[in-house]
Amino acid sequence: MKLQVTQENLNRALGSVAKVANSRNTLPILANVLMKTSNNRLSLSATNLDIGITHYIGSKVSEEGSITVPARLMQDFVGSLPEGVINLELQDTKLKVTTDQYKSVVNGIVADDFPVMPAISSGKSWKVSGATLKKGLQQVVFAASNDETRPVLTGVLLTTQDGVLSMAATDSYRLAEKKLGENKEDVNLLIPATALQDLLRIIGDSDDMVTITHDDQQVLFQVGDIELVTRLVDGKYPDYRKLIPSSFATQATLKRSDFINVTKVSSLFARESAGSVTIELDEATGKLSIRSVASQLGENTATAEANIKGTGSITLNSRYLLDGLNAVGGEEVTFGFNGKLEATLLHDSASKDYSHIIMPLKS
Amino acid sequence: MKLQVTQENLNRALGSVAKVANSRNTLPILANVLMKTSNNRLSLSATNLDIGITHYIGSKVSEEGSITVPARLMQDFVGSLPEGVINLELQDTKLKVTTDQYKSVVNGIVADDFPVMPAISSGKSWKVSGATLKKGLQQVVFAASNDETRPVLTGVLLTTQDGVLSMAATDSYRLAEKKLGENKEDVNLLIPATALQDLLRIIGDSDDMVTITHDDQQVLFQVGDIELVTRLVDGKYPDYRKLIPSSFATQATLKRSDFINVTKVSSLFARESAGSVTIELDEATGKLSIRSVASQLGENTATAEANIKGTGSITLNSRYLLDGLNAVGGEEVTFGFNGKLEATLLHDSASKDYSHIIMPLKS
Repeated sequence: MKLQVTQENLNRALGSVAKVANSRNTLPILANVLMKTSNNRLSLSATNLDIGITHYIGSKVSEEGSITVPARLMQDFVGSLPEGVINLELQDTKLKVTTDQYKSVVNGIVADDFPVMPAISSGKSWKVSGATLKKGLQQVVFAASNDETRPVLTGVLLTTQDGVLSMAATDSYRLAEKKLGENKEDVNLLIPATALQDLLRIIGDSDDMVTITHDDQQVLFQVGDIELVTRLVDGKYPDYRKLIPSSFATQATLKRSDFINVTKVSSLFARESAGSVTIELDEATGKLSIRSVASQLGENTATAEANIKGTGSITLNSRYLLDGLNAVGGEEVTFGFNGKLEATLLHDSASKDYSHIIMPLKS
Repeated sequence: MKLQVTQENLNRALGSVAKVANSRNTLPILANVLMKTSNNRLSLSATNLDIGITHYIGSKVSEEGSITVPARLMQDFVGSLPEGVINLELQDTKLKVTTDQYKSVVNGIVADDFPVMPAISSGKSWKVSGATLKKGLQQVVFAASNDETRPVLTGVLLTTQDGVLSMAATDSYRLAEKKLGENKEDVNLLIPATALQDLLRIIGDSDDMVTITHDDQQVLFQVGDIELVTRLVDGKYPDYRKLIPSSFATQATLKRSDFINVTKVSSLFARESAGSVTIELDEATGKLSIRSVASQLGENTATAEANIKGTGSITLNSRYLLDGLNAVGGEEVTFGFNGKLEATLLHDSASKDYSHIIMPLKS
């Protein structure tokens, strides 16, 4: 193997794949990245056996070949090099990396020892706007569970209903759903949230379309020169749509930044009580107030002006409320609830594309 | 106690003192900040028994008094409040904190339980420019040891010699000395490096003069409305001046940014060898090269153009070299050494005010 690449391209490709290699793995070779030439392209691949990412970059290949090298060292090293041409040359399992100023030898492991990258041979294929997908992922993925004992909830559900594509995640304490828009293809995919976090990183600031190809077991995302394949999560996702309340006994509409500020201040006094804060809506005074009590430290009541219908109170985890307020976006938000034990709903007052549900705490 | 302060002032004062209170302490009350009115000023004080900091702010006092409250909660809380007037009112040991939107009660502990703040009653007093002191502290303090078994080396020595004030610190592997300029007062103070890190934070971007007052046991720094008192370190500081080499068998002058870059890249391959890198100067080629070998990962040689006198090589810890290169400042640096076991010297080529000495590793 002998080739030339630019530092910028190699650095970008290592940035795409190295994180998957860096995740704690049992097989040492999974900490390596596979580099392989093919015509005038160099592919860099990494996998943790569940997720595989490959990034293709242009290169001037004078001798074909392949090798695996430590991902973290290679990423740190290439990231420290100045912009410009990098010469790569393989001698046995030693990769010589040379620029004007730097001469390095990186010890590799033969490519044959690298596991077969997850791949998808056939399946349905469709496209979605990268910007739309990214925004949706940012609003939904964090609500998935990371409790491996309930694998279904570690996934994000991508489904169509009545021709509209939506994305949903829940850890059973809160639920986020985003409607992404119309979609011709009928889909029902349960995708690991960790893979979608990688996808979010890969989409970055790109405005490209994302091509999604899937069969029963796997899904492939293609963004520009990058491919991410992940296995799907097995199991039946709960019928979350029936959990989203549609009418409310009590409801407030207020500036999102006000709601965030009063929640933040209240959460400081909620540390002792595991984040528990009580929200009171008073139709007569037009005030939303949040109260938190720390028996040791003290107590706090914070109020904000709001447009209120109905009077009542509910107790929530302030961290979940802040997560929801940050994800919902928009200038003004609407927050509604019914009984003290029923699901609450938060949405952008100007749009119903995104719903954020938080289950109350017993108060 | 009943008074009004602005959020900006209270927040600034808590920022000055809270960190000392937050350091891990055995006495629970040391996690509190003492608030005390006196005429139309409010003082906030915190101490860890070694170091004490007091910040005075203007306030409208309608009833004098004092109380201690949890520093971290108070800092987080006041920091989250909007700008504007804050009302403080004490009822028993409960401090009521009220603004338009927020009503809080913070549970305090009576001021009588707070330890007496370190104070200095008399002593010599002199002034030094805050900007000069800050720059010197940034270049010197990090070189002090944090090994409590050799307390003398955890201090920074502030001394005058021939009417020139200098500051020095060493952990026995490296040594930093900064000449601060002429000083009429004769001094010889060994000040804990941790106290000087707090002083650095307190000086911030202020251009004020700093007043230094000291007796045999303590030193007081006054910066604007803030006072920091610390005990001095007991013991005799090593005669460090004789360790600074003045002539060199081998010496290179080069762009500091080049030296930093090649050291950074080399250090990546020096992780296995505890940071060990070998620097070679070659007068004939005018090149400085840094070589590092990681038996497992690979090896690296990086070169930079330099103006070189004498040919030779020396092995250093790359982290110490990077620390030194970052601290030394300036466009061009001069790096000199003699035998393989003797101290090396790094300084700004344009100035000899700052000397950074690194002891070599055995190679």
